[in-house]
Amino acid sequence: MDELLEPLLARDRRALSRAITLIESTRPDHRARAVALLADLPDRQALRIGLSGTPGVGKSTFIEAFGTMLTEQGLRVAVLAVDPSSARSGGSILGDKTRMETLARNPMAFIRPTPSNAQLGGVARRTREAIRLCEAAGYDVVLIETVGVGQSETLVAEMCDLFVLLLAPAGGDELQGVKRGIMEMADLILVNKADGELLGPARRTVADYAGALRLLRKRPQDPQGFPKALPVSAATGDGLAKAWEEMRALADWRREHGHLAANRAEQERQWFLADVRAGLLARLDTPAARDRLAHLGDAVAGGRAAPAEAAHEMLDWLAGQK
Amino acid sequence: MDELLEPLLARDRRALSRAITLIESTRPDHRARAVALLADLPDRQALRIGLSGTPGVGKSTFIEAFGTMLTEQGLRVAVLAVDPSSARSGGSILGDKTRMETLARNPMAFIRPTPSNAQLGGVARRTREAIRLCEAAGYDVVLIETVGVGQSETLVAEMCDLFVLLLAPAGGDELQGVKRGIMEMADLILVNKADGELLGPARRTVADYAGALRLLRKRPQDPQGFPKALPVSAATGDGLAKAWEEMRALADWRREHGHLAANRAEQERQWFLADVRAGLLARLDTPAARDRLAHLGDAVAGGRAAPAEAAHEMLDWLAGQK
Repeated sequence: MDELLEPLLARDRRALSRAITLIESTRPDHRARAVALLADLPDRQALRIGLSGTPGVGKSTFIEAFGTMLTEQGLRVAVLAVDPSSARSGGSILGDKTRMETLARNPMAFIRPTPSNAQLGGVARRTREAIRLCEAAGYDVVLIETVGVGQSETLVAEMCDLFVLLLAPAGGDELQGVKRGIMEMADLILVNKADGELLGPARRTVADYAGALRLLRKRPQDPQGFPKALPVSAATGDGLAKAWEEMRALADWRREHGHLAANRAEQERQWFLADVRAGLLARLDTPAARDRLAHLGDAVAGGRAAPAEAAHEMLDWLAGQK
Repeated sequence: MDELLEPLLARDRRALSRAITLIESTRPDHRARAVALLADLPDRQALRIGLSGTPGVGKSTFIEAFGTMLTEQGLRVAVLAVDPSSARSGGSILGDKTRMETLARNPMAFIRPTPSNAQLGGVARRTREAIRLCEAAGYDVVLIETVGVGQSETLVAEMCDLFVLLLAPAGGDELQGVKRGIMEMADLILVNKADGELLGPARRTVADYAGALRLLRKRPQDPQGFPKALPVSAATGDGLAKAWEEMRALADWRREHGHLAANRAEQERQWFLADVRAGLLARLDTPAARDRLAHLGDAVAGGRAAPAEAAHEMLDWLAGQK
C-alpha cells in the first residue's frame, strides 16, 4: 500500500498535493506507483462540475465566490484547471491561486493549477486522475475549470457530471459568438455581471440564451426545463445560491434515474481506451526510439526512403524491442 | 515489381484508379503491396495546390473552369477531395464527379472523390499517397480540394506546395467569419462570383482581404506582394488566367529559392511520423485486441478495475502478442 494513501484518505492536503505531483510525472517508476495508488483508491464520489468561460467573463471571481459559498454550507471544494495554452506558456501556474486568494487560504478548499509542460492529452489524463484523488481525499464538489477554446471544453465535459458555461452580458448579435457545439454541451448557462448597470443587459442575455438552448438541445433523459440559463453576479453574490440549487436538482435527478452512474461508467471506459492509446504511443518516447525516428525521418526528408516504407521499418524495429 | 506500376507510369487512368483503391484498402496484404508500390514510384513531381472553400462559394464550378483552362494549356490535372464529413455520410462519393461533368470527361483530367468509411487520419494518408500516384502517372497539377471545416484545411495545407482559399463576396463585417488560422495558411485568396451585380462587392471584398492578409501574415521567405487576394469568376472565366499566373509565380519563386523542396522534405518527415503512430495504434484493431479491449472496458465501466490499471493490463497483453 502506498505511503500516500493513508494521509490522503485522512484528508491531508499536503498528501493530496504530493499525490497529484506523482500522477503528473512521466517517469516510468512514478507512473507505476501512480497506477497502483489509483487502483487502491476507495470508490468515494464527489459532484464533478465542469466550468467554462472565456477570459474576461469573471471566471476566477465566480469560482472564488461560488466556492466560498459552498464551503460555508459545509462542503469541501476542489478546483482543478485545464488550460493547455497556459500550460505551454507557463503563465498561470501561480496565477490561479493569486486570482482566488480567499478560496486558496480556505481550509475547506483545494486549488490546483494546470501543470506546466503538458499537452492536451497529458492534461486530460492528469486531470481525471486528480479528480479521483480529490474524491478520495474527501472533497464533495470538484470544479474543473477551463477556458473557452473548443477542444479543452469537450475534454472537460467528458470528465464531468454537469457542464456549466459562464458568459458575459451581450447584445443579441453576439450570441453567435458562442459556438453551437459548446452551447450543446451546457447543462446550465450562467450570465455573470448581473448587477448595477449590466443587470438589464444580463437579464436580456439570459432570455436570449434560454431561447437558443430550447432550440439547440433536447436531452430526453433530463428533467423539464433543462438546460437552463440564469443570471448571476460573482461580485454581489446574487444568484449563486439559485445556481447551486439548480445544479444539485439536476445532479439529483440524474443520480436517481441512473444517468449519472451510466455516464460515469461510459467516461471510465473512454479513459481506459485513451490510456491504452497513450501507452502504445509512449513506446516512441524512449531515447533509442527517438534516435531511430530521427534517423529514419532524415532518410525520408532526404528522399532516400518513402514515408510508408520507413514507417514499416520503424514498426518492425519496435516489434523486435524488449 | 507490381503489375500496376508499368501501366501507371504509362499514364493509364484505370491503373491509377486501381492503385488508389489499393492504397485505400486496410487489408494487411493490400497494405503490404501498397507500401512496396509506393516505394517503387519514380520521383516525378507535380504542383500540389490545396483549395479550400465553404459550400456555396462555387468550388466545383471553379475547379471545373480552372481545371479545364489548365488542360487547354496542355497540362494534365488531377483532383482529389478531402471531405471527412461526406466520407462519413457517404454523400458526395458520386457527387464529386457529377458536379464537374466537363472535367470528369476530359482525358487530360482525373477526378477522385473522398473514399467512403474513412476517418480524418485515414483520409490524410490516403490523400498524400494518392498525390504520389498521380504524380507518377504524369499529372502536372494536383488539386486537393477540401471544405472549410478547420481540421481538414490544416491537413490539406500540410500536403501542398500552395494553399488557395476560395471565398464569396461579403460585407466587411463578414470577414470575421473566416477564421484567423485559415487566413494565415492562405497563399492566395480568390474571391469568386466577381461578375454581374456582384462585381462591385467582390472587388471591395478583395480589398478588405488584401488589407487583412497584410496584417495577419508575414512570411519572409515569400516574394513581395504575397499572400495576395484576387477577384475571379468561375462562371465567366474572368481572372482564372491571372490566378494561375500568380500561383505559378509563387511556386517558381519557392522552387528557385529551395523553399519548395525544403517544405516537401519536412512534410514527408511528418507523414512518416504519422504513419508510425497509425501503425502502432493499428495493433488495437485486430479481432483478438478488440475482444480484449471490450472485455477490459466492461470491467472498467462496471467498477471492477481502474482505467489506468486496465490499460496497463492491455498493454502487457499487447507486448506478449506475436
